[in-house]
Amino acid sequence: MLKPIQRDFQVRFSYATLFTHNLFAVDNTTLRDVIDGEEKRVLFVVDSEVARHNPRLSADIVRYCQHHKDKMQLAHAPIVVPGGEQVKNTEKYVDVLRKAVNDHGIDRHSYIVAIGGGAMLDMAGFAAATAHRGIRLIRIPTTVLGQNDAGVGVKNSINAFGKKNFLGTFAPAVAVINDFNFLETLDDRDWMAGVSEAIKVALLKDPKFFDYIHVHAEDLKQRDMTPMEWLVYRCAELHTEHIATNGDPFEMGSSRPLDFGHWAAHKMEQLSGYEIRHGEAVAVGLALDVTYSYKRGMLDEAAWRKVLETFQKLGMSIYAEELDMLNEDGQRHVFAGLKEFQEHLGGELTIMLLEGIGKGVEVHHIDLDVMAECIAVLKEWERTPQSVISTVEAATITAEAEKV
Amino acid sequence: MLKPIQRDFQVRFSYATLFTHNLFAVDNTTLRDVIDGEEKRVLFVVDSEVARHNPRLSADIVRYCQHHKDKMQLAHAPIVVPGGEQVKNTEKYVDVLRKAVNDHGIDRHSYIVAIGGGAMLDMAGFAAATAHRGIRLIRIPTTVLGQNDAGVGVKNSINAFGKKNFLGTFAPAVAVINDFNFLETLDDRDWMAGVSEAIKVALLKDPKFFDYIHVHAEDLKQRDMTPMEWLVYRCAELHTEHIATNGDPFEMGSSRPLDFGHWAAHKMEQLSGYEIRHGEAVAVGLALDVTYSYKRGMLDEAAWRKVLETFQKLGMSIYAEELDMLNEDGQRHVFAGLKEFQEHLGGELTIMLLEGIGKGVEVHHIDLDVMAECIAVLKEWERTPQSVISTVEAATITAEAEKV
Repeated sequence: MLKPIQRDFQVRFSYATLFTHNLFAVDNTTLRDVIDGEEKRVLFVVDSEVARHNPRLSADIVRYCQHHKDKMQLAHAPIVVPGGEQVKNTEKYVDVLRKAVNDHGIDRHSYIVAIGGGAMLDMAGFAAATAHRGIRLIRIPTTVLGQNDAGVGVKNSINAFGKKNFLGTFAPAVAVINDFNFLETLDDRDWMAGVSEAIKVALLKDPKFFDYIHVHAEDLKQRDMTPMEWLVYRCAELHTEHIATNGDPFEMGSSRPLDFGHWAAHKMEQLSGYEIRHGEAVAVGLALDVTYSYKRGMLDEAAWRKVLETFQKLGMSIYAEELDMLNEDGQRHVFAGLKEFQEHLGGELTIMLLEGIGKGVEVHHIDLDVMAECIAVLKEWERTPQSVISTVEAATITAEAEKV
Repeated sequence: MLKPIQRDFQVRFSYATLFTHNLFAVDNTTLRDVIDGEEKRVLFVVDSEVARHNPRLSADIVRYCQHHKDKMQLAHAPIVVPGGEQVKNTEKYVDVLRKAVNDHGIDRHSYIVAIGGGAMLDMAGFAAATAHRGIRLIRIPTTVLGQNDAGVGVKNSINAFGKKNFLGTFAPAVAVINDFNFLETLDDRDWMAGVSEAIKVALLKDPKFFDYIHVHAEDLKQRDMTPMEWLVYRCAELHTEHIATNGDPFEMGSSRPLDFGHWAAHKMEQLSGYEIRHGEAVAVGLALDVTYSYKRGMLDEAAWRKVLETFQKLGMSIYAEELDMLNEDGQRHVFAGLKEFQEHLGGELTIMLLEGIGKGVEVHHIDLDVMAECIAVLKEWERTPQSVISTVEAATITAEAEKV
């Protein structure tokens, strides 16, 4: 028989995450400098929430492209699509962008520039990655979550069959540009929601960064830009470093450290009909898995309390009623999130927990009874000022939960 | 301002192309050996044409999985989808497979095994690459074209907006398994159509291989398996070698050497309503671009004649009436294929021509008047036994074409 032909090859990806203010001021060259070549066709896609908060944005984009027409040519007026999770819950907007690619002569050397929150960037990224087998994408995230997490990752997606991120690909952007001015126009929920992803990566990788967030929690709540810019920068840096150096950027294995706290978060989002923001759900999911780490004796009490206090100082909820929703068999809906999480990653169930601040550890089994106790602890903590709850009381709550 | 974060990383891909007979005989371990892990869920997708020619195939698959259940577990009965280009002309079958992934618990560590012709493999590959951001795919091509070309590539696609391969991704299979037995059940058109891709790669890369095809052309036409097995093997080897060593496996540049002859082929297929097989269109497209190479003084007459004679000995047409279809402005429809080809690749128009057998050369401009003359030459050659046409007569035909 003819011998097998074995072929190995590597594909090199390279991308920059850039930081700026006033991106579309004509003398700001950040965007023009990432365009490779001359007179490239560029298609802008703008999140409707961003357009609403920045009414001059479309005009600024047109003026910018006119000024820099030697590098970039506007293929069409900026296309406005909805923001938020709703844009991912249908293939409709992906089709809108694919049609625009076809109608406006966008080729594999043209650019799609997507300006918006994490959900909209996920959707636009999926459209860009699959039209002509991949149009060059520049991501301009406008939320804290987008700038420090979703926007700097290498994934895109939409939801299908009621499952978050069921459809998508791995496709790095050619550049990510974070304009801090966009953060000023966010409402308080969106400002705060992205902080939880920074807490997540700090808890896994950088205790000093966690301390920084802990110390500046009240400033962050007061919308002080200085700590927020550093938070976004350091989180983006840790996130991209992880992708580039963890050895599995396209997640072919079963391990996904950066999805710490996410099995419950994804399910809560779905159960709430996407009323809960992703970052808000991640805060609860992190609080839950940190509490579980403590209850299993992996994490010491001081560290556990410090994490929950940080969320509290930030004004972020660590409990959501979706955690206690029951299905028709009387089981908690949220626990189905474990199986869905495993299915999505593939292979063995692999859940990241915490051994210490800055030190993650993976486990392959979750005790649902203990997890139910943790939900009860979070519910009580959320209801009662943290200073009131002592370890003894927490133990009592646990004992009560066990009786249920 | 915070300094840019620059990140580079490489993603390693590895795949084997394997050759066998009687793949689903229970003692044939070719398929089980490519499954990584134990008790992996496997979803089979079968081309309806293949199912028709191999009525016992589904039963054989079930028996094979039963015998090898320590490695592979049948997630569901094999799913039969149409073969041929029609399966790519809609998103319907992609959705069927995505739904099956959802319904049957297929995760990123499960396998989709796709058995069929090149078009069906393209479609199934697109579904596999985008569900859960990529399910492991094993391709089992059943046509000559699939085994020596489409099946061993790293691309997938469906058609959209009337354009071939408008949607798709780059996603290598984990393995390609070529079972030569499938070739015996092909009808004559499908048997022969795939030979043109072998001629293409031989013309670009291996004059000895071209001589082999030239010498064995009549045996191939008579359906002799021995030269066909070698043709498939050598073509697959040259094809995968190109992908692994050309430095641009995901085609980020403008050059696509393996698309020699394809700008016209893709357009002819579309103009024929996909009545013309891809391989048949490639034969005409190659004859056209080889003739253009000769007419532009790049290729000598003997080489030009040898190429056309080879197609003739194989019984393959080198002309199709789609070449002479005119649009409402009296322009040849097929010439729009140049622009579409450029758009699809992106960047500058880059067309592969021939300087000698085994020696391609890229040009960035095509003279449409000369190309029109070449169409006239092919039409006449197709109508008249090749021995009758002398260089002088070819020149006369050209002169007449110029008058039109």
